[in-house]
Amino acid sequence: MSALKIAVIPGDGIGTEVMPEGIRVLEAAGKKHGVDFEWSFFDWSCEHYAKHGAMMPDDGIEQLRAFDAIYLGAVGFPGVADHVSLWGLLIPIRREFDQYINLRPVRLFEGIPCPLVGRKPGDIDFMVVRENVEGEYSAIGGIQYEGTEEEVVIQQSVFTRRGVDRVLRYAYELAQSRPEKHLSSATKSNGIIHSMPYWDSRVAAVGVKYPEVKVDQYHIDILTANFVRMPDHFDVVVGSNLFGDILSDLGPACTGTIAIAPSANINPERTGPSMFEPVHGSAPDIAGKGIANPIGMIWSGAMMLDHLGRSDVHDSIMKSIEQVLKEGSCLTPDMQGSATTEELGKAIAEAI
Amino acid sequence: MSALKIAVIPGDGIGTEVMPEGIRVLEAAGKKHGVDFEWSFFDWSCEHYAKHGAMMPDDGIEQLRAFDAIYLGAVGFPGVADHVSLWGLLIPIRREFDQYINLRPVRLFEGIPCPLVGRKPGDIDFMVVRENVEGEYSAIGGIQYEGTEEEVVIQQSVFTRRGVDRVLRYAYELAQSRPEKHLSSATKSNGIIHSMPYWDSRVAAVGVKYPEVKVDQYHIDILTANFVRMPDHFDVVVGSNLFGDILSDLGPACTGTIAIAPSANINPERTGPSMFEPVHGSAPDIAGKGIANPIGMIWSGAMMLDHLGRSDVHDSIMKSIEQVLKEGSCLTPDMQGSATTEELGKAIAEAI
Ligand SMILES: CC(C)[C@H](C(=O)O)[C@@H](O)C(=O)O
Ligand SMILES: CC(C)[C@H](C(=O)O)[C@@H](O)C(=O)O
Repeated sequence: MSALKIAVIPGDGIGTEVMPEGIRVLEAAGKKHGVDFEWSFFDWSCEHYAKHGAMMPDDGIEQLRAFDAIYLGAVGFPGVADHVSLWGLLIPIRREFDQYINLRPVRLFEGIPCPLVGRKPGDIDFMVVRENVEGEYSAIGGIQYEGTEEEVVIQQSVFTRRGVDRVLRYAYELAQSRPEKHLSSATKSNGIIHSMPYWDSRVAAVGVKYPEVKVDQYHIDILTANFVRMPDHFDVVVGSNLFGDILSDLGPACTGTIAIAPSANINPERTGPSMFEPVHGSAPDIAGKGIANPIGMIWSGAMMLDHLGRSDVHDSIMKSIEQVLKEGSCLTPDMQGSATTEELGKAIAEAI
Repeated sequence: MSALKIAVIPGDGIGTEVMPEGIRVLEAAGKKHGVDFEWSFFDWSCEHYAKHGAMMPDDGIEQLRAFDAIYLGAVGFPGVADHVSLWGLLIPIRREFDQYINLRPVRLFEGIPCPLVGRKPGDIDFMVVRENVEGEYSAIGGIQYEGTEEEVVIQQSVFTRRGVDRVLRYAYELAQSRPEKHLSSATKSNGIIHSMPYWDSRVAAVGVKYPEVKVDQYHIDILTANFVRMPDHFDVVVGSNLFGDILSDLGPACTGTIAIAPSANINPERTGPSMFEPVHGSAPDIAGKGIANPIGMIWSGAMMLDHLGRSDVHDSIMKSIEQVLKEGSCLTPDMQGSATTEELGKAIAEAI
């Protein structure tokens, strides 16, 4: 196997701190399993924006196209408006490469104190499948009567049959492949009366092909409540761009720290590279201190290898994460320990 | 003082079961404090819909207009589409009477087991202020290319200067009146790039008049995570129609049961009646069993009396709720007890 060509975008804030640990662990696991990497670094970030007036060059997307995958730390920093930084880098990558699935596992690990009373590892272990390129994250809208008391802002959401069906199919397939075969759909069709009833109708229509999958649906309000009340109920949860975003922060919070949460922005048809990034952002409040938890980054790397056909490397990394967490002597402050980013990264690399 | 004229709409499911307990407790508290009630009952519900083809009569809104307040149980039941039941009764009442504030207290009581590790009464005690008549709950939108593979559904959200500013002013005033003077705004301006940056800009603009209020803002994804991670951080939380809806279900879930959560749909200018209803819905799964927790209904009644200028009655009801919960021998199943709806209602009425 020739080397895997990975585009590396550390980005902003703690993105630049956790990225070396992600690479360290991937290198260690690659060495063990005979996988070589060719890392290409891109300094696209808010700093890049400050220097060049853009988060990435005009041909940025084209530069990324030939890579096997994109490995991204975090984007966004105070001083640059989010809709400039994120919509200048993260969102275009998701869209241009049609990474229409955002897959985000939620799992309670032995060794991380759980904020929910009485929950044990095994109780919380589900996947959030988030629609990643349309829906509520729409550039369509604007303001009328600007600057007056009569200002009206319209924001549109766009849901297409193609866009909804393909994320639902992915979620059904995933549910079907798991022992519980249980899919929960996030909706809000009682309040949002065009897009969400449509979503519900497609959940029913697409589901016809998956008679073995047990489906339920919850309005997003009670669904967030249920993540706290009965996190053991969930197996695969599918939601729109916004609802999936919410659930994939809340879910990890229920497992003790959002900093371990990984994500895979997947183009299942492989017509372009997929992108792997931790769910946490650039975390300006702790940036520069060297205490960020690198597990979200490392786990995202494991998902990248799984996507690239090396589930052996994925499994090896996950075992090392589990082992280090369980052992418990090397945890970052968010997990109520005192280890540094580098110490935890090294511990996991050594456990490989 | 002449009798308070209350329009009573028990509605559907457990709405009809908790309503008698709400009235029972209000009657008991009224007797103690010299407040008389004149209850007028309206059978508007999904049953009404089945019989008459509408959730309420054509002149329903006019029938309600002259009341001092509306006391509502729950609306919606399987068999009638939510956008028919809710948009035929609940939503029109909120909008026609310009009840643009939905006020929802979140509080951890002594006696109710808290699902969050290590949280004690006093740790969780905040108010959610939800915009209640515009935003994401918009009737504007529709489908194109219906029935084909090319279906496109557009859903619009509508935010107006007037609508946003008035809910923010209310939230700032409320924060200013509280000891902590702390306001948290729910946003998602990094993903939803027209309405939410506008919301943020109005939070800043309206805030100029409230220099004493400490303001922070969180994207809705991390905000839901923070409800679990640091519920003691919050004092007043303000959000759009959708975000306020989510936070006011999640918040109560973090206090052990959503069934105690009350809400006040307020028209602060009093150009029409305000409406008071528990946050829980009609709960078809437990309807008919007589085991629904009536505290959400009772607490909503207390908020109604507060709104009508009788904070003495409000306080008296709250003390009785606290006392019965603390005593702990009469809890409904959702609070891990075995009392019936009626037993708990009677216990609170007797404690008055
Ligand atoms: C029933 C539904 C339309 C309603 C809402 O979302 O407003 C409910 O969830 C609430 O919170 O009052
Ligand atoms: C930064 C932001 C635009 C992004 C999103 O909402 O998609 C992030 O929250 C995420 O979950 O990846």
